[in-house]
Amino acid sequence: MPQAIAYAIDGPTGRFVRTTIERREPGPTEVLFDIRYAGICHSDIHTARGEWGPARYPLVPGHELAGVVTRVGSAVTKFAVGDRVGVGCFVDSCGACEQCAAGREQFCESREKPTVWTYNAIGRDGLPTAGGYSTCFTIEQDYLLRIPDSIDLAAAAPLLCAGITTYSPLKRWGAGPGKRVAIVGMGGLGHMAVQLAAAMGAEVAVISQTRSKEADGRRFGASEYYATSEPGTLRHLRRSFDLMVTTVSGSSDLTGLLGCLKIGGALVDVGLPEHPVELRMSTLTNGNRILAGSNIGGIAETQEMLDFCAEHGLAAQVEVISGEDINDAYDKVVASQVRYRYVIDTSTFTA
Amino acid sequence: MPQAIAYAIDGPTGRFVRTTIERREPGPTEVLFDIRYAGICHSDIHTARGEWGPARYPLVPGHELAGVVTRVGSAVTKFAVGDRVGVGCFVDSCGACEQCAAGREQFCESREKPTVWTYNAIGRDGLPTAGGYSTCFTIEQDYLLRIPDSIDLAAAAPLLCAGITTYSPLKRWGAGPGKRVAIVGMGGLGHMAVQLAAAMGAEVAVISQTRSKEADGRRFGASEYYATSEPGTLRHLRRSFDLMVTTVSGSSDLTGLLGCLKIGGALVDVGLPEHPVELRMSTLTNGNRILAGSNIGGIAETQEMLDFCAEHGLAAQVEVISGEDINDAYDKVVASQVRYRYVIDTSTFTA
Repeated sequence: MPQAIAYAIDGPTGRFVRTTIERREPGPTEVLFDIRYAGICHSDIHTARGEWGPARYPLVPGHELAGVVTRVGSAVTKFAVGDRVGVGCFVDSCGACEQCAAGREQFCESREKPTVWTYNAIGRDGLPTAGGYSTCFTIEQDYLLRIPDSIDLAAAAPLLCAGITTYSPLKRWGAGPGKRVAIVGMGGLGHMAVQLAAAMGAEVAVISQTRSKEADGRRFGASEYYATSEPGTLRHLRRSFDLMVTTVSGSSDLTGLLGCLKIGGALVDVGLPEHPVELRMSTLTNGNRILAGSNIGGIAETQEMLDFCAEHGLAAQVEVISGEDINDAYDKVVASQVRYRYVIDTSTFTA
Repeated sequence: MPQAIAYAIDGPTGRFVRTTIERREPGPTEVLFDIRYAGICHSDIHTARGEWGPARYPLVPGHELAGVVTRVGSAVTKFAVGDRVGVGCFVDSCGACEQCAAGREQFCESREKPTVWTYNAIGRDGLPTAGGYSTCFTIEQDYLLRIPDSIDLAAAAPLLCAGITTYSPLKRWGAGPGKRVAIVGMGGLGHMAVQLAAAMGAEVAVISQTRSKEADGRRFGASEYYATSEPGTLRHLRRSFDLMVTTVSGSSDLTGLLGCLKIGGALVDVGLPEHPVELRMSTLTNGNRILAGSNIGGIAETQEMLDFCAEHGLAAQVEVISGEDINDAYDKVVASQVRYRYVIDTSTFTA
């Protein structure tokens, strides 16, 4: 069995420690690859700390994996040894239901063989899944992504979650030339959303709490930058945007944000606020406005996003850290101190 | 000046009494018509009773007008004496802004010459507008609708608000063959929504509080009928509908209703709950679901709706009342005792 060195946490108040886990031998249609880099997503922290309910400990998080193929099963047709590959939030699904057939494997409706998340789930082998904070990974070829040569592997890793999470709603809701798009919050998700929306041809505004990231925002492609800490900001922006993508998980003034939409505009939430939000329905009705959610994307769309990033020279701005830095990094992500995504270099695991 | 007999209310706790009001002489592009029937919309009651803020008293409500043209201005090209016509929620707008140009006059963005509502507003003559509970009406030809010959005038009146309010979101969000559509609440709006969705070819379900209107619902075209008073109803309906249109103004379990949407489905509110609603955002996100509002429709779309109703033999189911019945009717609407729309016969005003 392939062995992986991994960083695991053993409870909601625990700390990450180095350990060894087993990966399964790749089956006929499976691929084994060396993980080179793994991004730290805020979801990892919520899960590891039990904030989204009890997790399966010991837990190896990570659903932004980038690496290089080392072995392929006998019937693998899509990948070869040496290929640069990535894995996102899920690793399996039924492949047959209406959602899977439509390329929305993240919403697989099978009861027997539903979407298998990259960690904190039960895999097709009946064992708990373990994520990207580790040195190798076994996966069915249909759930593996190809990372274009032009994208640095470290900067590619966050695309597998932060990239697709923002790409999908921007595309679905029509970001493009002639459209004015606001990105609310400029963290790991937001800094990708700004780049993607700008590359799609939209006129992009950032709505952040402060102006501390304004220079970065403009470098990422925003032509406007607003701070909600400045009084009257949202009032000033009434009826301004065709599309808004909100990436913040904390509570926000949803009614105020919706008022910034043009008639018929859409606000898409990808930030998953932990608590219920309050909404004045007339803000939607008196303007035919739309509030929508969006949850990552399917395999084909994720590949499309990776290819789009390569075509437009986009990638995540990352801070590369070692395995020993994970505990500190978690605290800094929560404190919004990362610019803009921590990526773990798994070569440090064996040092 | 044309004189109209009208029913007016003089304060939020007042009662409707018969009075006389003046209409302006039709200008070159204006039309004067005899109102034959006027529907009673729940909005009339909210406005008359001051529940949506202070109203302009004395108030003559009514934004579901059906009648016959009696005089046309010298430059009127669209209508002739004797034509069957209707007026909905608004009577004027700038005609030049982006929204007006797009046929969404209800969202006119002009500051100088915004949308003029049929009552409780200030008209182009600088005088307060007075609505349909009256015997005649003067209006610019571009804001007047043509009522097809096959639709009875009394049954046509409610189409001007209840009809377009439900037609517009059903069309915008794709009600049609192969789509499963739920209508939440079966009052004035809901009973039109059921008919319209069925005529569009959708498979229609009603979600009501009780089964008291089930036979009517099936007659209107619903193939399924559910009562939220029966435990487990919404849970049983999880992931069932492509589209839901909620017509209830009271508080409802929004998160529970959203859970009844299929992946990517849309719930459209036209009921305008008075109080803010609470929403668990994950219900949207974990299913790419959509919550949208919709506010009546523009002139062209309203005409399209009237023609659609004629083509499919649809109209409102009404109870025709006299002017003296208005006060009682208000109480019965609030108590959900009307089947399904009260329509005032203005010929009773002179009795």
